[in-house]
Amino acid sequence: MKLLKPLVGAAALVALPTLTLAQDGPTPGVNASTDTVFILNSLLFLVGGFLVFFMAAGFAMLEAGLVRGKNVTMQLTKNMGLFSLATVFYYLIGYNLMYPLGTWSVEGVLSGVFGPGVLEAVGVTSDAADDYSYASTGSDFFFQLMFCAATASIVSGALAERIKLWPFLIFTIVLTSVIYPIQASWKWGGGFLDGMGFLDFAGSTVVHSVGGWAALVGALILGPRIGKYKDGKTIPMPGSNLTLATLGTFILWMGWFGFNGGSQLAMGTVGDVADVSRIFANTNAAAAGGALVALILTQVLYKKPDLTMILNGALAGLVSITAEPLTPSLGMATLIGGVGGVIVVFAVPFLDKLKIDDVVGAIPVHLFAGIWGTIAVVITNGDASLMVQLYSILVVGIFTVVASGIVWMVLKATMGIRVGEEEEIMGLDTTELGMEAYPEFSKG
Amino acid sequence: MKLLKPLVGAAALVALPTLTLAQDGPTPGVNASTDTVFILNSLLFLVGGFLVFFMAAGFAMLEAGLVRGKNVTMQLTKNMGLFSLATVFYYLIGYNLMYPLGTWSVEGVLSGVFGPGVLEAVGVTSDAADDYSYASTGSDFFFQLMFCAATASIVSGALAERIKLWPFLIFTIVLTSVIYPIQASWKWGGGFLDGMGFLDFAGSTVVHSVGGWAALVGALILGPRIGKYKDGKTIPMPGSNLTLATLGTFILWMGWFGFNGGSQLAMGTVGDVADVSRIFANTNAAAAGGALVALILTQVLYKKPDLTMILNGALAGLVSITAEPLTPSLGMATLIGGVGGVIVVFAVPFLDKLKIDDVVGAIPVHLFAGIWGTIAVVITNGDASLMVQLYSILVVGIFTVVASGIVWMVLKATMGIRVGEEEEIMGLDTTELGMEAYPEFSKG
Amino acid sequence: MKLLKPLVGAAALVALPTLTLAQDGPTPGVNASTDTVFILNSLLFLVGGFLVFFMAAGFAMLEAGLVRGKNVTMQLTKNMGLFSLATVFYYLIGYNLMYPLGTWSVEGVLSGVFGPGVLEAVGVTSDAADDYSYASTGSDFFFQLMFCAATASIVSGALAERIKLWPFLIFTIVLTSVIYPIQASWKWGGGFLDGMGFLDFAGSTVVHSVGGWAALVGALILGPRIGKYKDGKTIPMPGSNLTLATLGTFILWMGWFGFNGGSQLAMGTVGDVADVSRIFANTNAAAAGGALVALILTQVLYKKPDLTMILNGALAGLVSITAEPLTPSLGMATLIGGVGGVIVVFAVPFLDKLKIDDVVGAIPVHLFAGIWGTIAVVITNGDASLMVQLYSILVVGIFTVVASGIVWMVLKATMGIRVGEEEEIMGLDTTELGMEAYPEFSKG
Repeated sequence: MKLLKPLVGAAALVALPTLTLAQDGPTPGVNASTDTVFILNSLLFLVGGFLVFFMAAGFAMLEAGLVRGKNVTMQLTKNMGLFSLATVFYYLIGYNLMYPLGTWSVEGVLSGVFGPGVLEAVGVTSDAADDYSYASTGSDFFFQLMFCAATASIVSGALAERIKLWPFLIFTIVLTSVIYPIQASWKWGGGFLDGMGFLDFAGSTVVHSVGGWAALVGALILGPRIGKYKDGKTIPMPGSNLTLATLGTFILWMGWFGFNGGSQLAMGTVGDVADVSRIFANTNAAAAGGALVALILTQVLYKKPDLTMILNGALAGLVSITAEPLTPSLGMATLIGGVGGVIVVFAVPFLDKLKIDDVVGAIPVHLFAGIWGTIAVVITNGDASLMVQLYSILVVGIFTVVASGIVWMVLKATMGIRVGEEEEIMGLDTTELGMEAYPEFSKG
Repeated sequence: MKLLKPLVGAAALVALPTLTLAQDGPTPGVNASTDTVFILNSLLFLVGGFLVFFMAAGFAMLEAGLVRGKNVTMQLTKNMGLFSLATVFYYLIGYNLMYPLGTWSVEGVLSGVFGPGVLEAVGVTSDAADDYSYASTGSDFFFQLMFCAATASIVSGALAERIKLWPFLIFTIVLTSVIYPIQASWKWGGGFLDGMGFLDFAGSTVVHSVGGWAALVGALILGPRIGKYKDGKTIPMPGSNLTLATLGTFILWMGWFGFNGGSQLAMGTVGDVADVSRIFANTNAAAAGGALVALILTQVLYKKPDLTMILNGALAGLVSITAEPLTPSLGMATLIGGVGGVIVVFAVPFLDKLKIDDVVGAIPVHLFAGIWGTIAVVITNGDASLMVQLYSILVVGIFTVVASGIVWMVLKATMGIRVGEEEEIMGLDTTELGMEAYPEFSKG
Repeated sequence: MKLLKPLVGAAALVALPTLTLAQDGPTPGVNASTDTVFILNSLLFLVGGFLVFFMAAGFAMLEAGLVRGKNVTMQLTKNMGLFSLATVFYYLIGYNLMYPLGTWSVEGVLSGVFGPGVLEAVGVTSDAADDYSYASTGSDFFFQLMFCAATASIVSGALAERIKLWPFLIFTIVLTSVIYPIQASWKWGGGFLDGMGFLDFAGSTVVHSVGGWAALVGALILGPRIGKYKDGKTIPMPGSNLTLATLGTFILWMGWFGFNGGSQLAMGTVGDVADVSRIFANTNAAAAGGALVALILTQVLYKKPDLTMILNGALAGLVSITAEPLTPSLGMATLIGGVGGVIVVFAVPFLDKLKIDDVVGAIPVHLFAGIWGTIAVVITNGDASLMVQLYSILVVGIFTVVASGIVWMVLKATMGIRVGEEEEIMGLDTTELGMEAYPEFSKG
């Protein structure tokens, strides 16, 4: 029964252990009314949802700031396009694939599109009542959609400055309507990984590593930017606007409160809101840990702190705590995030050594720190099994690599995924779009 | 009685039909307490209000990004000024004009300014209790103020790069203290359009078309920028910073969740929060629809996707869904927003053909899509009458055109509204303000 | 007893008088349940907290926009670093120093860092239940942390373009772990200033003047930038990106709704949410007042409105209302904020006359307007004593000046706080960090 309602099963699994923590306070004398619980749960999804929505802006700013000036308009166009496509295709296909309600059908799609008064996602017909004991379907859909879109955002940064617009957007369609939802259903749709006891609170694996794997496969098939690796050396191609990259990082950091906090999936009891509070504090601590470690490490290693590493360190800290933002202490959360910072500082040059060209550092941040975060669950959560965590990372990884590999290969074989050499050197903005992001400022 | 309390009448009218939808769930066994309903309704206004507040930043970034570098400081100054003036004059005059409580008086203004402990808007004396069965007056005022300010923000973009600062600010004073509140009272103050059954949930007509009409009349009286139309051709004058224009669009998109969601005006029942949830999801879908249609259409028409069209397409999608974000299905919301995208792609060159110079595309986005959205209500809302919708669009349009036309003409005749030719060519930043936005970056 | 729970004492002191205001509505027939009150209070801290968090981005954008292009990366690095350090050190030391729970110990720190399942701040052991009648400790910690971080953000702007990275970060550590918490405990920890009846609702003195004093002492010891004062003249060094400075101001403005509104410390009763609503409206009004006064004054004095003054005017208006955002009427709030605008317009050139080089105007905005705001409490709050307000300003000022003076002097004597002359002239980005913020845009 519970599996028929998106996330209720997962919510119960995740939330139950925490309700027994001593800090949750005395058993309440007067519970909130059923109405109030419904409203507060839905409100958590709405507030969490708009915060995660804003991460789309964060990704856009981060990526626009880290690419060179000649490719900024293209990067912005990709970000606008991918979010919009995620919205449409997660609605049309993804949501119901992820939460198999048994009612998906072409008729359902058509009635969803044209039926007056039917506002729910396809498959949730107008007969389906909101689960009165939980939250409104609309708020749940809104929240889940933003996670799907975030997965797509991760990919765009890694492949910047050389991928064609349309193949990238077509990949986004497949990712958001099929690849992300299928694997997400294994955990959050009450599937077999969930049944095995896999723990991934807000998606270090389900969201971040999936985006990271898809980006890695794409980067391998696409190849590095022209001139990036020359005579065994990595040629730096500095981002055009570090202020906006920093703004993007702060926006993502803020959005993560919604990402992790909202993944408590409930705020209608004293225990739930206390948990959401801890998650906010831990999420913030992990980001700080990642940033500080990157700051100190780059000072020690290179004698000069590296801002882009600090930014990615904060993001890696956030990804690291995402699989379990509730059970760690604040100090432990800082350390878990700090390891994310270590990963970034060493993985960025490591990928360059392998000639894998990841323009914004998305693979270290989302894939490597995502794997670390998923493993780190066993440190603080007694319910976690290291083997199950590793198995789940592997299963999700293999599925994503194979599925996205096939899509990238098909796209390469049919329409081609890479812009011409001249276009790449001139920049995608003038050659592909005929529009510069900063037309008045001469290039140095 | 109800009309004495701002918005309660309108809220009931709008909210009632939706409460009968099947998805609202079973009749609650235990209602939220009266206190809780009051708190949750007020909270909706506060959260919705700060989101709509942030739209002021969104407009500022969008406009600063779409004007040329030599006029950026001026555009930022206008945005700071207009929002601050809207705050003061909506408080002093507009709010009470919009919700005629019968107590507006010079004494009331003075006592509001100097009376200690009186925090409410003028006219709401310290004797007036908050309506205990609804929400706090302060939260309602805060929310309503942001709508008034948004109307003024719409105007500034269209008239950029050639209008003088002070005439523009004086126009803002009249718009926010008189023009906007009077026509808004016809619908939201329980006036005659409301009585006829005019439906405009969050203001496709009341907010967006009014800003759009005022901008259109201003643009006609002001005339196009020097060199914009030459020998029958439109000369492109590309925006100086598309990254910030994109950021502005994302900020506006996020703010719109507050704009439309908050306009449910209540969150204290299961039905209300379910409606707010649907509104969030539909608002997002419409924006995506508008952006995607603009992306595809510019690819088809011009062979190159046009980022500024995509940004304006998203905004037009948002405006289109604003008159009725609740009753459409997600698919229908996407389509309604998509038509907004069509409007933008065709209306921008159409205005240029008429030599109406709208620097940022505010007239297509807010006026044309606002009209479309108001008409589209009849597609999904059985209570809507096409004739009443058209009549209301017309009445509001004629009033705004005449009123703002008079103000613009008076300003033109007395102090002049347009900067000198040399100032315009040199740029307003150095000539009018003596301060460049990007002083270190040489112009190409 | 109550003092054992952070802020409950302060909350009661601050909130009680307002509960007696006539506007609070009739005595509720049905109170919200204890659970619901707990949840809503915690939710206020969470929403307020993420808004204040975002102020870190606001400060970063404001400062990055107001420094010259050659020092932008350094300013961003400082902002990332200071926030992360504040997170770690307020947790390790500051929070428990501010709210002396009698349980701080080295063992507590270690157990907080390594103990599984202990998520609360150090000193709050796993035995300590959340105060069921109030709010979750995690949400309180999250909210308080952001205030501490904001204090540190204030300092970085004033000392920009010449201070070394690491001495600045070490100062941040001392400020956030010792200086801020000790003096904050005098008021918000239930200390002697609180006992005397000192009123400082959200921290005009406790946060803003402390940041301002620390910045002033730092600026004095550090000395002005090379070339800033020549032959008795002040040489303008215009900011590199006014669009981002404006964005930063808007972000700070929005964050201030959380800063002041959240400082009501409760949202679980009709009276509390009505107070939060008034605070939102007043905070907005004060910002508008400050901006408008700066706009008009610079027009009158210099014949040209000055955008940077308008931005700082808005911020000074916000600081001015922070000591008492609840009791003023909307009109009075506008006037109190307006005086903040006057302060900025006259204090900025005044500091230049004294050759105190404050790059972003942090001292006028946070120190001078902070003092004004603290004094202004007596205008609208009958419980305030002018002598107590002045005495508290003085005590906090002397403590902060002496403490931060010692730290700055020790740092100067040991590692040096100022970059070399050549580094300063070339810019900190290339010389200290080897990374430019806008590498492609040539300097004019």
